[in-house]
Amino acid sequence: MAYTAPVEQIAFILNKVVGLPEVATTEQFAEATPETVDAILTEAGRLATEVIAPVNRQGDLSPARLENGALRSSPGFAEAFRALAEGGWIGLASSQDHGGMGLPQALNMAVNEMVASACLALQLNPLLTQGQIEALEHHGSDELKALYLPKLNSGEWSGTMNLTEPQAGSDVGALTTRAERADDGTYRITGQKIFITWGDSDVTSNVCHLVLARLPDGGAGTRGISLFMVPKFIPDENGDPGTPNDLRVVSLEHKLGIHGSPTCVMSFEGAKGWIVGAEHKGMAAMFTMMNCARLGVGVQGVAQGEAALQQAAAYAAERMQMGPIIRHPDVRRMLAGARAEVFAARAICLACAVAIDMARATGSQDWAARAAFLTPIAKAYGTDVGTRVADTAVQVHGGMGYIEETGIAQYLRDVRITSIYEGTNGIQAMDLVGRKLADGGNAAMSLLDEILDGAKAAQATQPELAHQVWQSAESLREATQELLDRDLAERFSGAVPYLSAFARVLGAYYHMLAATKGGSVTLARVHVTRILPQFAADLAAARAGLADLEALDDAVFLGHMAV
Amino acid sequence: MAYTAPVEQIAFILNKVVGLPEVATTEQFAEATPETVDAILTEAGRLATEVIAPVNRQGDLSPARLENGALRSSPGFAEAFRALAEGGWIGLASSQDHGGMGLPQALNMAVNEMVASACLALQLNPLLTQGQIEALEHHGSDELKALYLPKLNSGEWSGTMNLTEPQAGSDVGALTTRAERADDGTYRITGQKIFITWGDSDVTSNVCHLVLARLPDGGAGTRGISLFMVPKFIPDENGDPGTPNDLRVVSLEHKLGIHGSPTCVMSFEGAKGWIVGAEHKGMAAMFTMMNCARLGVGVQGVAQGEAALQQAAAYAAERMQMGPIIRHPDVRRMLAGARAEVFAARAICLACAVAIDMARATGSQDWAARAAFLTPIAKAYGTDVGTRVADTAVQVHGGMGYIEETGIAQYLRDVRITSIYEGTNGIQAMDLVGRKLADGGNAAMSLLDEILDGAKAAQATQPELAHQVWQSAESLREATQELLDRDLAERFSGAVPYLSAFARVLGAYYHMLAATKGGSVTLARVHVTRILPQFAADLAAARAGLADLEALDDAVFLGHMAV
Repeated sequence: MAYTAPVEQIAFILNKVVGLPEVATTEQFAEATPETVDAILTEAGRLATEVIAPVNRQGDLSPARLENGALRSSPGFAEAFRALAEGGWIGLASSQDHGGMGLPQALNMAVNEMVASACLALQLNPLLTQGQIEALEHHGSDELKALYLPKLNSGEWSGTMNLTEPQAGSDVGALTTRAERADDGTYRITGQKIFITWGDSDVTSNVCHLVLARLPDGGAGTRGISLFMVPKFIPDENGDPGTPNDLRVVSLEHKLGIHGSPTCVMSFEGAKGWIVGAEHKGMAAMFTMMNCARLGVGVQGVAQGEAALQQAAAYAAERMQMGPIIRHPDVRRMLAGARAEVFAARAICLACAVAIDMARATGSQDWAARAAFLTPIAKAYGTDVGTRVADTAVQVHGGMGYIEETGIAQYLRDVRITSIYEGTNGIQAMDLVGRKLADGGNAAMSLLDEILDGAKAAQATQPELAHQVWQSAESLREATQELLDRDLAERFSGAVPYLSAFARVLGAYYHMLAATKGGSVTLARVHVTRILPQFAADLAAARAGLADLEALDDAVFLGHMAV
Repeated sequence: MAYTAPVEQIAFILNKVVGLPEVATTEQFAEATPETVDAILTEAGRLATEVIAPVNRQGDLSPARLENGALRSSPGFAEAFRALAEGGWIGLASSQDHGGMGLPQALNMAVNEMVASACLALQLNPLLTQGQIEALEHHGSDELKALYLPKLNSGEWSGTMNLTEPQAGSDVGALTTRAERADDGTYRITGQKIFITWGDSDVTSNVCHLVLARLPDGGAGTRGISLFMVPKFIPDENGDPGTPNDLRVVSLEHKLGIHGSPTCVMSFEGAKGWIVGAEHKGMAAMFTMMNCARLGVGVQGVAQGEAALQQAAAYAAERMQMGPIIRHPDVRRMLAGARAEVFAARAICLACAVAIDMARATGSQDWAARAAFLTPIAKAYGTDVGTRVADTAVQVHGGMGYIEETGIAQYLRDVRITSIYEGTNGIQAMDLVGRKLADGGNAAMSLLDEILDGAKAAQATQPELAHQVWQSAESLREATQELLDRDLAERFSGAVPYLSAFARVLGAYYHMLAATKGGSVTLARVHVTRILPQFAADLAAARAGLADLEALDDAVFLGHMAV
């Protein structure tokens, strides 16, 4: 059950595969020297393994609960969180202007992965806080920044995102929470929000809610929405938590997993709020927060996959059925496929983080477009891999996998939310084939060019891998071109398999790169022979079109017709 | 949440796709007239929908528990079980010699599906009883048959299978439970068994354990194992439950799902047993029971997939996010793919049942080989589809899917066991490429011939479908031939993807047949464009071989190496 942070593997991907050294050549990230990177990964790995992982099971067995309206977190969570906060880990990638360390997101995401492997339910708290920090850094007033950022970076306070309402899930524009202007330049927020992760906390002294709401003169849909900072306790003149704001946790949800993460129904009852960004422009600020969070969620998928895979491998090494089952071909098939996919998903997530860093450090629009293009892939593929690997890990355990005491089922239950929250994986895929192809396919084609160039360069040393990568990337280019000629509804009908195909080709590319740089050629071959080939089936599904789906009567789905 | 038995769809598959009418032409099953089939499906559908489905949620919320060593089943389970038993449903396919109805397994499996859709945890009880009936019919002495079969068929008593021990899971031959001969021709059984489904029951007046144990002169491994009937209460001279036997339930497991199904640790402490079949030949009798149970478990997968899909479709029709989400292309993609797979898996299971019936009715070795070949495919693919569709159904629900009150997560938790028990799906796949290809591939090739002939016949009316089926079956034939030339370890390394490929091609074949007989051409096209194409990726993985898997260091799986 013991998780061991895969520090070497992460360092290899950062340094040899996705180009962290290039990030470190920029002025902004000059401090990310090889020594610093090593030291940070090692220390974060130790923290995750020794301090945070031990509380994971307690979070499942003793869920967060409400006591007289106040949250009581799971046993050990407060101590684990304090260790994380006091180590300065929450503000690792935040601006140094307000107490952050200013290091690259690539490094921060690597650290996030290890923490999320150790305890997903707990890690959600700092992850959302990081997203809030980013939103404030980009859109907050100087006063808000000065007041909130130091406390958020230090982990004294934590942050939440309040988007969803019962009738407004994927359709954020349907929200009805109201904001009204007060005389003093602040606002009063009234409405109910659901699915608010860590909506209350006894591990921080204040909880800072970023709330989407509509002003009286805000138009319909997403364009009339504004974003507000609504703290649980209104800061006093010293910046300390002062009087309670008019908001409360109504109830907690009973969920399939992440029991240690309180999922709150929040009621804002004329709560005092401060605008973040311009009035009616809340979605822009929220997207800043969501993009960071989306990559972070992809990383969570990788993290849970890694932890589940480790436990499955350890069990397989010990479990004797005609010898240790780790020697059985079918068990090795499961473990090898899982490892190849975790490697691929991790590389995709870290490549996305590197693109974010390069965009920030250089101001390059190309890097920004690359980051934007990779974000939905990292989120959806990372979480799909996490779920798939956790499922495989249960299977490796046989009957013991179904027994809760074994602990492996918790990964399957916990990770399952990652394909849903921060925009379901379907929403991610629609973002990919919609917004992210709206540049006429430039970002997609430039990434495919990189892959094809990489394959050519690898031909001399890894001809077999290079051939597979080249061929699959060519097919993907054709399919992309075809998709660009279709209308949105047609694209949407194939969005999820298209994203899956792209991720498989990308994964094969990073495996190939790794193989040319001292990584495992065998693992790369496992990927191209067993994981990559599904891209063709995915592309077939991506091209299958909308007509058949439209032609089916809804009664067919409901089982009310003969066929 | 309401499940509605898909009676029309099941009847269509039975009558038009898998050949139940041919079964009804045999003397043995002459009573399975169209009128009888219709009446039985309709009445079973009503029972499942109205009487059994309502207890499903209670089984999850109020698990079976031990009270002073005695089992207390979930609220409502006893009443639902009595309705099932009193309707004569348990003995539907049992011999009429001892109180059964003597109807085809194909019909019985159709009924089993509806009951398992309604409540998987409860349906396990009659399913295992049916397996025990079959084992006794084939291997029991006349005395055992006369005593036990009427009570099992009527549901007064229930049956269990006692195979697994902590050290003996997939490796059944490692078991250590001892049997000793007593003076009176009976035996004394001593040992501990785990994972015993419905190992105790308060819904029947006796629980009949079939227990695998080793006699002192039984050799090592599976060849030295004998099978014993070990009742909870020793029947008195009237055949009523008499004195308690020396056995007890030690504890119940806490499981991911099927909370209403008690999973027992059983202790046999010199319990009185009666031999079933010959001494040391217990595995043969157990395999009779397991084969029936394996198909039954495949049907459970289909059943849970059906129920989850219905709930997802109903939710999607009602959930408004920019219109009802059932109109969104990506949601229709999910629902259509799920419906196409449920259809395919159901057809495979029912085709397997028809083969069993034909083998029994005609004594044909070819039909027996067909049944044997289809059994692992039905079990593994049926349960994989069930898990996949339940997962999709959660995804369709978005955030609500993760909330336990919604009820959809229960399907995902419940169905997950079906890929594990009765031989994991990996074991099924190894059975397929091992034992089931041990005839030199005759059974496989004869099935592929049927598919290819069917494709030729369909060319005139459904050229597009016929072309896809023909091409995929040809590829599958080549891959099968290649597999036959490899040794077992090589085959095992590709067994699971090979089984998946075979199931996809078979599924496409049944869809094509359906389309030529008044079924939905559109749904068939959804299958061949979106579900079938993965067969090629599966075959690539099936051929990828053992060498890479062997070459990887175990430390790679554990995450302890750079790559």
